Amino acid sequence: MTLPKFKFTADGLIPAIVQDAQSRRVLMMAWMNETSLQQTLATGLMHYWSRSRQKYWLKGETSGHTQKVVRWAADCDADTLLFEVEQTGGACHTGYESCFFQTFTPNGAAIDIAEAKVFDPEKTYEKK
Amino acid sequence: MTLPKFKFTADGLIPAIVQDAQSRRVLMMAWMNETSLQQTLATGLMHYWSRSRQKYWLKGETSGHTQKVVRWAADCDADTLLFEVEQTGGACHTGYESCFFQTFTPNGAAIDIAEAKVFDPEKTYEKK
Repeated sequence: MTLPKFKFTADGLIPAIVQDAQSRRVLMMAWMNETSLQQTLATGLMHYWSRSRQKYWLKGETSGHTQKVVRWAADCDADTLLFEVEQTGGACHTGYESCFFQTFTPNGAAIDIAEAKVFDPEKTYEKK
Repeated sequence: MTLPKFKFTADGLIPAIVQDAQSRRVLMMAWMNETSLQQTLATGLMHYWSRSRQKYWLKGETSGHTQKVVRWAADCDADTLLFEVEQTGGACHTGYESCFFQTFTPNGAAIDIAEAKVFDPEKTYEKK
């Protein structure tokens, strides 16, 4: 498939913002390279590039918490992508629904986390 | 004010995702440095770092389309920020409400833009 011409960084990466298609809660931000983007479009499931592990990965590979693409968009500069997904389980490796669970007041005071985790990361990621 | 310890890139930047606090539409993604983050928290209005112009800027400085911070969050890795804002006018310099106006089907076909611009960029950005 021919992709639209997106602007990748010098490292060949583009940021992908991920949002729950129904609630519109922003779940996470991660990086894609061209291969992970191609795999995402080919399979309908979010694939990323891990900068720390230097490999591409299917989100949910270990946890089963996959993200099915409902629709997506590119921004006006074609250098950032936004994916609306159906999230299985939770998006965050800590067990929370969203990676953005630590909130702040406008002037920067941390707010106590009021939400509960949606899964137990120790059980989900334990060695099989 | 002492900021929480966020992870900035080697260039001293951190990505900021901006979402409409009411509709939860994602409006844009831009970069902040520590000064622009400090200014955002001090004023309650979104400030960014322009990588192309190498200066920090108040969003809406020229257009009047400011973004008032309602609440914000950091992600689990403390390397990405999410701001929920009240957007005056539109967030995109093209005149659209959101920079993510070009949408695609899950397998990558571009969808015709159905929404109208919320302001006329030629009038908004014309030389005074």
